[in-house]
Amino acid sequence: MPDVHFQTELTSGLTLVAESMDWVESVAMSLLMPVGAINDPEDHLGLANFACEMVQRGCGNRSSRQFVDDLENLGVDLSGSVANGHTSFSGAMVAENLPTALEILADLIQRPHLPEDQLEDARQVCFHEIHSLEDDLPQKAMLNLRQRHYPAPYGRNAIGQMETVSSISHADVQRYQAEHYGPKGAVLAIAGKFDWDEIRSKVEQLFGEWPEVGQPAPVESPAVRGYEHVASDSSQTHICLAFDGVPYHDNEYIQARGAVGVMSDGVSSRLFTEVREKRGLCYTVGAHCHSTRTQGAIMCYAGTTSERAQETLDVILDEFRKLGEGIHQDELDRLKARVKSGLIMQQESSGARSGALAGDYFFYGRIRPVDELRALVDGLTCETVNSFLRDHPFNQPTTVTLGPDPLEVRLGDS
Amino acid sequence: MPDVHFQTELTSGLTLVAESMDWVESVAMSLLMPVGAINDPEDHLGLANFACEMVQRGCGNRSSRQFVDDLENLGVDLSGSVANGHTSFSGAMVAENLPTALEILADLIQRPHLPEDQLEDARQVCFHEIHSLEDDLPQKAMLNLRQRHYPAPYGRNAIGQMETVSSISHADVQRYQAEHYGPKGAVLAIAGKFDWDEIRSKVEQLFGEWPEVGQPAPVESPAVRGYEHVASDSSQTHICLAFDGVPYHDNEYIQARGAVGVMSDGVSSRLFTEVREKRGLCYTVGAHCHSTRTQGAIMCYAGTTSERAQETLDVILDEFRKLGEGIHQDELDRLKARVKSGLIMQQESSGARSGALAGDYFFYGRIRPVDELRALVDGLTCETVNSFLRDHPFNQPTTVTLGPDPLEVRLGDS
Repeated sequence: MPDVHFQTELTSGLTLVAESMDWVESVAMSLLMPVGAINDPEDHLGLANFACEMVQRGCGNRSSRQFVDDLENLGVDLSGSVANGHTSFSGAMVAENLPTALEILADLIQRPHLPEDQLEDARQVCFHEIHSLEDDLPQKAMLNLRQRHYPAPYGRNAIGQMETVSSISHADVQRYQAEHYGPKGAVLAIAGKFDWDEIRSKVEQLFGEWPEVGQPAPVESPAVRGYEHVASDSSQTHICLAFDGVPYHDNEYIQARGAVGVMSDGVSSRLFTEVREKRGLCYTVGAHCHSTRTQGAIMCYAGTTSERAQETLDVILDEFRKLGEGIHQDELDRLKARVKSGLIMQQESSGARSGALAGDYFFYGRIRPVDELRALVDGLTCETVNSFLRDHPFNQPTTVTLGPDPLEVRLGDS
Repeated sequence: MPDVHFQTELTSGLTLVAESMDWVESVAMSLLMPVGAINDPEDHLGLANFACEMVQRGCGNRSSRQFVDDLENLGVDLSGSVANGHTSFSGAMVAENLPTALEILADLIQRPHLPEDQLEDARQVCFHEIHSLEDDLPQKAMLNLRQRHYPAPYGRNAIGQMETVSSISHADVQRYQAEHYGPKGAVLAIAGKFDWDEIRSKVEQLFGEWPEVGQPAPVESPAVRGYEHVASDSSQTHICLAFDGVPYHDNEYIQARGAVGVMSDGVSSRLFTEVREKRGLCYTVGAHCHSTRTQGAIMCYAGTTSERAQETLDVILDEFRKLGEGIHQDELDRLKARVKSGLIMQQESSGARSGALAGDYFFYGRIRPVDELRALVDGLTCETVNSFLRDHPFNQPTTVTLGPDPLEVRLGDS
């Protein structure tokens, strides 16, 4: 079988990575730049997100109207998004349309119009995004948790606040885009059906002279941690917890992922069984690994009634305490079967693979074929996971609750 | 190319349909039975959903624990769900695990334990589902809209109410399952890598003697329609509209889908352009076709601030009025490119295809290969869509708003 993975650095500094899937008719692209909410000035929180909205309103020789029309004619559902530490633009399409889609993407990144007469409309869209978060209580509680758990600005959400978004000027957006959209540390990932030589030269032609920009490191301040209750007359009480973990690029990350998998992946997981099935404490409960580029966490969410909220929190904390005592072979076997099944599905989707490749490069500095991930999972043993758990006890959770009444964070006798 | 589509009726009456995708390593199954919330007795609303929760707690020779453990060991993420008119169980997996997964599915459907000692835990899970809907305002408003727009019980949601779920007994669940889970009108859809002869005989062996059940037709009562405001101190005002449309199985459905696509599909669509981009009235706005088995509707949702809610509703109603005047060639061309691109993606996912096959059988009585869908889309012209629009004017919307203040439904001069 010929090698299906490719990686090259362009003259501009942009890295191009690709995975060939020659049995599909589609291809997906994902461009990721290492700038996000962490780069927003304190008085302009939400600027990266505002800029992301503005660059999608015309670029190169395409007006705002022509830009969206051309994307649709190509059948590309382009989506732009800003996270804490990165900004990305992705889309999947029929293979033959990739060259034209790349031309539009190159214009969007390097030659956006940022039309001043659309500034207020774009600002309104950003305002509405803030308002809709207010009505999405699980998400609101979870974003509060990240903000509290990580050192600032690494827990910051991308959408900003009404006051800070109000104060952003057209010049701010222009300056932000010019100073932050650059090839350094950025990656363009392509997965699906393509001819590597053709795509490489096309991308070199389109992105080879993308000018470099400086990327000042954000100023870090200590994490707040502890417990916060957000009063709300909501129907449910939303409970969020965060424990220290390890970041994605850490060699031990796979051990953390194994432990969290036993805790939360699927209907046989401990949280699903103990919290939902046996006690009927909630409809939704789950834990996951979360990571910035330098710091990792294990986070947990549950939504329950206010009457049963304290019991739910107590049971979850007790399950984390028990997890610290170790996992069992049958649990690990199930998790491995589950994860490997998921990897096979991922391998069959060009969109999933292009996103994974871009994420790999961002967090690991290189792409990781599915076979490598499978080998990592195969290498997990109870001993390796339990050794990790001994070294990373679940104590001192950062806790956020949102609902009618505050709760008590009881850490038991551990 | 050999035919990749298969359909057969088992001796029990269950229909088995399949689409072979021999380039993938995965396979997905989807079992759909034509019973859902419409079959719940008035005093036991939520019963179908409660039963769906209970059948997943042990079956055949597997205890509740063994059931979830075995599914995980097979890497199957089985999900059960109840909609207004149907109940379905679906899962994707590595191809070699399909026979065992089918054995478990056959037990779940025909020989569930429905353990009485888990009844209260399952009831709590159903309660939490009701509570979490209370905190999901867009969804809450949309479910209200369906309830108001369709004749009862065809707009009913599946989760029921606190009082009705409280009154469900163990005997109710047993009786419901025994009298409603049957092969008549049910379909098992399989897509991905499989050997047809092998799977057909396995399914015949497992489901061939599934006993038939009667399915009494629900008693219909007239739709409420009109306007309802749900008072809420939410941050946003949520606006939902429904117009009469045509059901999925109607030959004209593709015309309705074309019109709604021009209105709402993608960033070049009318709603996205006029409501979000040009006026900045909201972050989320969209329209879609919705259908029961006998009746279709065109529904629309927007979330906005209370200050701009009236303007948003006015602009949306005006856009529907303008849509009634017809669509243009460039809009239709973009929509066709977009839909055909989406069909190619769908064709590459075993999970998406098995779900689509089951839905096809349920709504159309037969499966529709992607090539047939592509031909339908190719056949759309401005003339056919505009002729449909002339025959189906957008007047008298059913309207639901949820937020601080009621709005005025102004239908303009049309």
